[in-house]
Amino acid sequence: MPSEEVAVVVEEEFQQVVTPWEVSSKNGEKINYDKIIHQFGCQRLDKSLIDRVQRLTSRPPHVFLRRGVFFAHRDLNEILDAYENGDMFYLYTGRGPSSDSLHIGHLIPFMFTKYLQDAFKVPVVIQLTDDEKFMWKDNLSVEKSKELARENAKDIIACGFNISRTFIFSDFDYVGGKFRENSLRIGKCVTLNKVASIFGLKGEDHIGKVSFPPVQAAPSFPSSFPHLFENHQNLRCLIPCAIDQDPYFRMTRDVAPKIGYNKPSLIESTFFPALQGESGKMSASDPNSAIYVNDTAKSIRNKIYHYAFSGGQDSIENHHKFGANLEVDIPIKYLGFFLEDDEELEHIRREYGAGRMLTGEVKNRLIEVLTEIVERHRRARAAVTDEMVDAFMAVRPLPNMFR
Amino acid sequence: MPSEEVAVVVEEEFQQVVTPWEVSSKNGEKINYDKIIHQFGCQRLDKSLIDRVQRLTSRPPHVFLRRGVFFAHRDLNEILDAYENGDMFYLYTGRGPSSDSLHIGHLIPFMFTKYLQDAFKVPVVIQLTDDEKFMWKDNLSVEKSKELARENAKDIIACGFNISRTFIFSDFDYVGGKFRENSLRIGKCVTLNKVASIFGLKGEDHIGKVSFPPVQAAPSFPSSFPHLFENHQNLRCLIPCAIDQDPYFRMTRDVAPKIGYNKPSLIESTFFPALQGESGKMSASDPNSAIYVNDTAKSIRNKIYHYAFSGGQDSIENHHKFGANLEVDIPIKYLGFFLEDDEELEHIRREYGAGRMLTGEVKNRLIEVLTEIVERHRRARAAVTDEMVDAFMAVRPLPNMFR
Repeated sequence: MPSEEVAVVVEEEFQQVVTPWEVSSKNGEKINYDKIIHQFGCQRLDKSLIDRVQRLTSRPPHVFLRRGVFFAHRDLNEILDAYENGDMFYLYTGRGPSSDSLHIGHLIPFMFTKYLQDAFKVPVVIQLTDDEKFMWKDNLSVEKSKELARENAKDIIACGFNISRTFIFSDFDYVGGKFRENSLRIGKCVTLNKVASIFGLKGEDHIGKVSFPPVQAAPSFPSSFPHLFENHQNLRCLIPCAIDQDPYFRMTRDVAPKIGYNKPSLIESTFFPALQGESGKMSASDPNSAIYVNDTAKSIRNKIYHYAFSGGQDSIENHHKFGANLEVDIPIKYLGFFLEDDEELEHIRREYGAGRMLTGEVKNRLIEVLTEIVERHRRARAAVTDEMVDAFMAVRPLPNMFR
Repeated sequence: MPSEEVAVVVEEEFQQVVTPWEVSSKNGEKINYDKIIHQFGCQRLDKSLIDRVQRLTSRPPHVFLRRGVFFAHRDLNEILDAYENGDMFYLYTGRGPSSDSLHIGHLIPFMFTKYLQDAFKVPVVIQLTDDEKFMWKDNLSVEKSKELARENAKDIIACGFNISRTFIFSDFDYVGGKFRENSLRIGKCVTLNKVASIFGLKGEDHIGKVSFPPVQAAPSFPSSFPHLFENHQNLRCLIPCAIDQDPYFRMTRDVAPKIGYNKPSLIESTFFPALQGESGKMSASDPNSAIYVNDTAKSIRNKIYHYAFSGGQDSIENHHKFGANLEVDIPIKYLGFFLEDDEELEHIRREYGAGRMLTGEVKNRLIEVLTEIVERHRRARAAVTDEMVDAFMAVRPLPNMFR
């Protein structure tokens, strides 16, 4: 079974591989997002669209929009056109529950989706792909995967989603009925060659991997959620996600018109870089590559001091002389994600880049910022009871979902 | 993706192809069941096993057992060993709802399963694979496939199943929860190469076809039916089916120990021959190749007279001289399935084979037998109400399923 098309093009032409399971570049180079946009065929999220979001929502655009964390899209303009004409939409995002604790990079799509939910006053469906994780991980049982999904749901709820506009579901618990009908309609339109090429699957892979993509595609269509959207069968869907999920939704968009559905729109983020540098995603297998949402203040301090890759020079003299290399500096990157004050960030960039501010000072500011985020998350998560998880995951109508 | 192993072996070595979608032999030769047993690796159902069934159930073995219609098995002896020691089992059979009307060959597994249900006093689960049919047929909608499943359920119920021991389910309606968990457990153990080889799939086939085999496998495990078998997690499963379904259950039996389950046992039938002769199965695309359960008496008479392939000689003189060739004679084959009186059948075989009885007389007797079966079925089906279908398909416990 050939797995050429996308995967090989990526590797040979672009010297980088981006699939839902692998993000890497040759020679440790930075991921080139312009090339990804070109290769995937999505569009750059430009200032005019961000201005339009600001105008339509009457609130300042999220820091992730202003700073280009969400940098690409597919047909976001169509969602905004429809919204401007009084048509609503819904948001769909998700998570593969892979470990008990999330790192701060995992929070990005959820923080951003919560902002979109509040700004546009629209419903959100959040898919926990416990079935996918069970199938991909050799030693993960169904039961453990479902348990992880529930734990992860607590972290997601802690991001502040509005329960009257949010449905969280575990694939193991929810997939059936209309949802499964849609996933089979989708599967009927995708050949083995196609899925092998999009996802880089081989003949020795198990068939569970082939069966999953339609399950991730199905929430893009409102009829998969009869308890929510029975009277909104033409509702458009906007999917905030990291760019590595794009292959799933390219497939979904390809299939949609064949089965009489709207194509979902996407708004896509860069990867959150590892502490060690920006050549890939953080790795759960290396705890020192990431800040986890349950790290202690001491652990955060320790990781940032010891592992956050610095663009500062190797001596104070050289630093004063040449300034920091902001292009590779991880503390500056992280502040770009999480320091909300644009002026302060610009000040730090200027001073640090000119060598007037030292790495230690920048790291200290980052430690403050991250510690606050992690502490806030920890408090919010501690307040999430099992009853709240049950409530968010209950299969129920959301009567006020557009208000 | 290579699809060599089984499919190619069949074609080249045995000059016949037997998969769930194709049954054919080269040069129009009869299907060679000894070769199938050898090729599939199942066992011949011998007289000692039939005697044992008779002894354990205290009733004469079904005509389909006595006449070798059910001719092969896998581990039937283990089911009987367990039963003899007081352990129960359950029966699992199914049907892909492909058209509004069944032909009499379709009734065979159901008539036999009903006999086993009554004889052993065990529960039956009957899977209607409306999802499979939707995926295989280009122009079949989900809705139409579900409708056909319900129509077919009426024919199945008309075979006389005991509602207190029978659960009929449509995949579209039922697959989810524990059932889906099992199908994913199964899928995780089967490679793409394996499924392509077993079922002869190619890269240009759609992924729905790859996703289905675990759905047909899942009912082999009691935990797929928590409402029935929550307290019977180690219950053994016996699957009565036509031999062309063996590839599904070879796969299932291969996977079972890997996921901690008992292998299902099988009891497998020959194909019911087409009116035109014994080189294959009947075809829904040629209405004159089969007797349908809604054929009129006139239509049955017409089909048998005009289309039932005769082993009689081309003139009365030659017939008296050489006798009929019983090996190719379809009326004799059909009587072998449906004429219950062993002595009468033996009489007809002897007289017809010796040329003392004419084709017309044999056909007349067959017309009587089939008309009675079809009339009986028609009456029984007419009495099946929508409420009864709902009742058989209700997801419910079966409190008296072993009595």
